[in-house]
Amino acid sequence: MMDAPWNRGMTIESSNPNFVRDIQESFARQGLNATLGASLTLVEPGQVHIEIDFSPHLTQQNGYLHAGVITSIADNACGYAALSLLPARSDVLAVEFKINLLAPARAPRFEARARVIRPGRTLSVVQADVYGIDQGLAEMVATMLQTVYLKRPAPNSKMT
Amino acid sequence: MMDAPWNRGMTIESSNPNFVRDIQESFARQGLNATLGASLTLVEPGQVHIEIDFSPHLTQQNGYLHAGVITSIADNACGYAALSLLPARSDVLAVEFKINLLAPARAPRFEARARVIRPGRTLSVVQADVYGIDQGLAEMVATMLQTVYLKRPAPNSKMT
Amino acid sequence: MMDAPWNRGMTIESSNPNFVRDIQESFARQGLNATLGASLTLVEPGQVHIEIDFSPHLTQQNGYLHAGVITSIADNACGYAALSLLPARSDVLAVEFKINLLAPARAPRFEARARVIRPGRTLSVVQADVYGIDQGLAEMVATMLQTVYLKRPAPNSKMT
Amino acid sequence: MMDAPWNRGMTIESSNPNFVRDIQESFARQGLNATLGASLTLVEPGQVHIEIDFSPHLTQQNGYLHAGVITSIADNACGYAALSLLPARSDVLAVEFKINLLAPARAPRFEARARVIRPGRTLSVVQADVYGIDQGLAEMVATMLQTVYLKRPAPNSKMT
Repeated sequence: MMDAPWNRGMTIESSNPNFVRDIQESFARQGLNATLGASLTLVEPGQVHIEIDFSPHLTQQNGYLHAGVITSIADNACGYAALSLLPARSDVLAVEFKINLLAPARAPRFEARARVIRPGRTLSVVQADVYGIDQGLAEMVATMLQTVYLKRPAPNSKMT
Repeated sequence: MMDAPWNRGMTIESSNPNFVRDIQESFARQGLNATLGASLTLVEPGQVHIEIDFSPHLTQQNGYLHAGVITSIADNACGYAALSLLPARSDVLAVEFKINLLAPARAPRFEARARVIRPGRTLSVVQADVYGIDQGLAEMVATMLQTVYLKRPAPNSKMT
Repeated sequence: MMDAPWNRGMTIESSNPNFVRDIQESFARQGLNATLGASLTLVEPGQVHIEIDFSPHLTQQNGYLHAGVITSIADNACGYAALSLLPARSDVLAVEFKINLLAPARAPRFEARARVIRPGRTLSVVQADVYGIDQGLAEMVATMLQTVYLKRPAPNSKMT
Repeated sequence: MMDAPWNRGMTIESSNPNFVRDIQESFARQGLNATLGASLTLVEPGQVHIEIDFSPHLTQQNGYLHAGVITSIADNACGYAALSLLPARSDVLAVEFKINLLAPARAPRFEARARVIRPGRTLSVVQADVYGIDQGLAEMVATMLQTVYLKRPAPNSKMT
């Protein structure tokens, strides 16, 4: 459940009763998530959080977390936040995103927090912030705005 | 040397005679590049190409190359294209970028090709296209527009 | 006709024989175009140019052309470039765009030049550059990357 | 005063005691604001709101407010939100922005609401939402993410 700008206080519910399990399965199918060590830490209708530990195999030239890694977890959080509101057997594709890198990514752990700001029929718009987390303090290191293409199941597709 | 929109036909040269070596060294310091298996394939003043092989450890949920990986090589190509025009001991930071994903990333090899479209004193603007390469054919799968912050060496810094 | 990255040398033709007239009529329906004094200067399949004269009623605080005006002509050029490739009775909507402002907009005349870099069924991706034009010299002052939503006519809609 | 993600609950104050007056004067120097009929409706440290009435001279082809006009008021709100935190005699330039258009802009009045999400020394990052306002109800029609270049006064410049 979420309280978003577009819901005017109404409770948002997913149209897929198994959305948490479906998102976990899709996430597990991504080879990149194992490579990065990424994990889903929150899956709610319209909101997804993904975390990652700092590691030397994910760095840029100065030893900070690479912008490509920050982008990867923010991109995934946006896509799954959009997917959480769709019927079963849907899929999502990132059309495009923009990310602003706000501070050097030096922290032992990072969390991307995405929320749908405009759900649609064909496209949803999702916003994510990425935080560096150090000893309980969270510093925002990046913010992303993404357009997601929604692949809904064909009307006559059979349940499998 | 490059012929860019902003050079009106003049030959562009780097102000750092060792820019190729310096970019290679910076690239090698990035832990992420080994993880992705990325390699520099062209380093010229204002232009950098980076290639990567498809691998199952870099995929999204449908088995294509993950958008985060496409972004990583495009981001690096943009940063080093900007760095190629700067004096020795400079560094670069991505301020922000936007990427449009144009086609599913299913090819055995991918190449990001970046070129500076506006070099500046504090900021440069760089554009990159990413191609999937299959049996000699290149299909554009993404295009990025990036703003790079230029960290020039302090005026009185000593050569080391 | 255009030679674009996606056409591999093939000639591109519009599927609407009256696309030039239809775009001119749509352009004329925009109240903003008269307010800005904007005019269409090129309409070809996949490419549209729009020009505007500098005027004190379009300025920002330092007397240059306002970024909102640069954006307006670039946005329109992108939309109509996408529309030029669609069947009759289609329409277009900007989903989103990003623009980098590259130089102060001080020139007597400005031209936005858009070209479709990826035509699609539901979405097209279009790129536009804006030039300040002074005594025959063109300086690029901005570059835009836009996602356009394509409203194709309903399959069973009647010709009117 | 504002409570922003980056201030951890601290009260934000402008370093320019006359920032409201200075922003009003800069706003009044923009020829475009009179053309659009735009007005400043809130100026606080790190936050600026700008409103505009719908008018047929500001429309796109279907009679809605043109995306270029939505962009113009969002761009100005972002710039002045950044300026509100700077010392006297500073100025701001938009480096780049991205805007997502979320819903058709059909309302009698529109308001852009900007807030600084990351203030910096050379660059600030600002976020703005634009709402259509109709009979007391506000619907979000667009969201912008902007990078602003900060032109601080020269250290030895005289007060004038």
